[in-house]
Amino acid sequence: MSDPNERLSKLAATFRDLEAYVQQEKVRVIHFGVGAIGAEVVRALLNNPEFEIVGAIDASAAKAGKDLGDAAGIGHTLGIPVAYDPESLLKDTYADVVVHCTGSSLTEVYPQLMSIVAAEKSIISSCEELAFPWVRFPEISQKLDRRAKETGVRVLGTGVNPGFVMDMLPMMMATASQQVKSVRIERILDVTTRRIQLQRKAGVGLSVSGFQQAATAGAVGHVGLRESALMIADSFGWRMDDVSETLEPVIARERRKNEYFAVEKGYVLGLRQAARGLVSGQEAVRLDLEMSLGANDPHDLVEINGSPPIRAVIQGGIQGDAATAAIIVNCLPAIARSRLTGLLSMRELPAIPYFRPRSQQREEE
Amino acid sequence: MSDPNERLSKLAATFRDLEAYVQQEKVRVIHFGVGAIGAEVVRALLNNPEFEIVGAIDASAAKAGKDLGDAAGIGHTLGIPVAYDPESLLKDTYADVVVHCTGSSLTEVYPQLMSIVAAEKSIISSCEELAFPWVRFPEISQKLDRRAKETGVRVLGTGVNPGFVMDMLPMMMATASQQVKSVRIERILDVTTRRIQLQRKAGVGLSVSGFQQAATAGAVGHVGLRESALMIADSFGWRMDDVSETLEPVIARERRKNEYFAVEKGYVLGLRQAARGLVSGQEAVRLDLEMSLGANDPHDLVEINGSPPIRAVIQGGIQGDAATAAIIVNCLPAIARSRLTGLLSMRELPAIPYFRPRSQQREEE
Repeated sequence: MSDPNERLSKLAATFRDLEAYVQQEKVRVIHFGVGAIGAEVVRALLNNPEFEIVGAIDASAAKAGKDLGDAAGIGHTLGIPVAYDPESLLKDTYADVVVHCTGSSLTEVYPQLMSIVAAEKSIISSCEELAFPWVRFPEISQKLDRRAKETGVRVLGTGVNPGFVMDMLPMMMATASQQVKSVRIERILDVTTRRIQLQRKAGVGLSVSGFQQAATAGAVGHVGLRESALMIADSFGWRMDDVSETLEPVIARERRKNEYFAVEKGYVLGLRQAARGLVSGQEAVRLDLEMSLGANDPHDLVEINGSPPIRAVIQGGIQGDAATAAIIVNCLPAIARSRLTGLLSMRELPAIPYFRPRSQQREEE
Repeated sequence: MSDPNERLSKLAATFRDLEAYVQQEKVRVIHFGVGAIGAEVVRALLNNPEFEIVGAIDASAAKAGKDLGDAAGIGHTLGIPVAYDPESLLKDTYADVVVHCTGSSLTEVYPQLMSIVAAEKSIISSCEELAFPWVRFPEISQKLDRRAKETGVRVLGTGVNPGFVMDMLPMMMATASQQVKSVRIERILDVTTRRIQLQRKAGVGLSVSGFQQAATAGAVGHVGLRESALMIADSFGWRMDDVSETLEPVIARERRKNEYFAVEKGYVLGLRQAARGLVSGQEAVRLDLEMSLGANDPHDLVEINGSPPIRAVIQGGIQGDAATAAIIVNCLPAIARSRLTGLLSMRELPAIPYFRPRSQQREEE
């Protein structure tokens, strides 16, 4: 080690490493909410060297205080404690983006979102009602947008649905069509092997009257069809007269069971939900969703009624939880780097949100 | 008309009209090249009140001097003469974007592109080799990019393929997947009722040796597979070892005829073309294209080998010419309004290029 040349060369190597490290510019992520989706996102983040988890938050007694690796069921610890109190962690941690996976209801998660934005962190959230909140929640949307602009950050709600299969995917495909008169999307999910939360959300195992009660209470039903319909209409510049939604049970014709349920004949296998948007009295947007035990021919279908017409079928359908985690992770680079501020939706992101140009020259001009 | 109130109210109405007109901000388009694709784009532009064709250019004796409506086979005149000399028209016409549909070869159309850029107009071109020119034509790409930045305009090559089915569509779909290991796209076209130029490009009616000669001369074969493979690899951050291309004839097993050809048994029904891109010795991109008379089961197939895997089939396949026209027209608003300058590709456009926010507030901040 006394050879000056050797020391110089070691020093140079260190600087090269340092330079490489700085050039990497990892996206620093705080993870908020370690439920089923949250845990899936944690796994996805760990798979990608572009991201670094620098903090974690979960308010539930079952998760708070644990190591994030244990809380998310990774199989090993990560050296990241799950904090109970968001305020102090958000304030004291240097991070670019908070991945937020705590709930579907915008009014419920709104205080969390505001405290993140106040701490000058951008947000990607799996909150379904945040995917396109402007029409249904104008006041909350304006407040979030204004506060995010003040603190110079971005807020995005996304996921597989709403956020992709029943809105962004058809809108992106419609780039190859013109004079589009209507759009139809169908998503048929067999929930047999899916997580129990999703099966319960679909009403599996309930009696018909139990399904109706749970639907009225909002405990059964998919959140997001209205958001998707509104985003599609707005993107095509359509002024919709109305969006009507229906929700009905899929009834078992024979006994059927899986790991979590044994459904008697006449009881509920799941749900069939639809949204219809009219423009000048004509059906312009039609979204059909079925989530049920043993659903026949699971698939996603996109139909663009334009010139040319486009009809695409995704065989088996896009796997929900894995896709939601992928979408969140793929949008992280765009949210971390964008020059926009405020409340965004998927359509304001670049076409390939995960694409990271080697030279950022264009953006910096 | 002597009632001052009435006159005032008429004046106010006029101002409202004027304001509405100004707010419309029509995109002013010069149309360059009135071949089969060009004529399709003209029809698409006329269908959309957002655009205004303010000039037309075609160097061929059959088109120049005619009215654009006649040259494009619209069925009526448009009051727009087709100019022979691009230079003076480009210089003297106030326009935002030139829609350029004159050829597939970038080296051939390069002088046209440079003169458009010099006239401070943005370009959307159907030139296949312009869709992702950086790797194969680095010098031309740099010159176009530099000149476009100097004059503050944008240059984009796009169309159904390359530009959409075999590159942008799978890359956009991959937003819902992660850890993507490979991408496969298959496009099977039955050219029976397609325009004769496409059938000749596919080699329909040739003998096998005629096909080989025409392929060697570049008269037969689809242009763009390599561009698509390179764009995909670059977007995923893959360093490809190599892209290999193959081109072979589809041979008739029995006599088959259509409007333009009677193909004897043993002669050529069309082409089968493929591109394979290797990353670290593994096949990461695989593109298969068949264009032939009576091709079995025409479709587009997209396979994303990631987590989750995605497999989408577009039944019948996206109709080429109509889709190319739609894509060009749908990208016009983004190209007219973008704040970027230089040589772009589809992936630098917004996810929904045809979407025009009612308030441009965000962009202007």
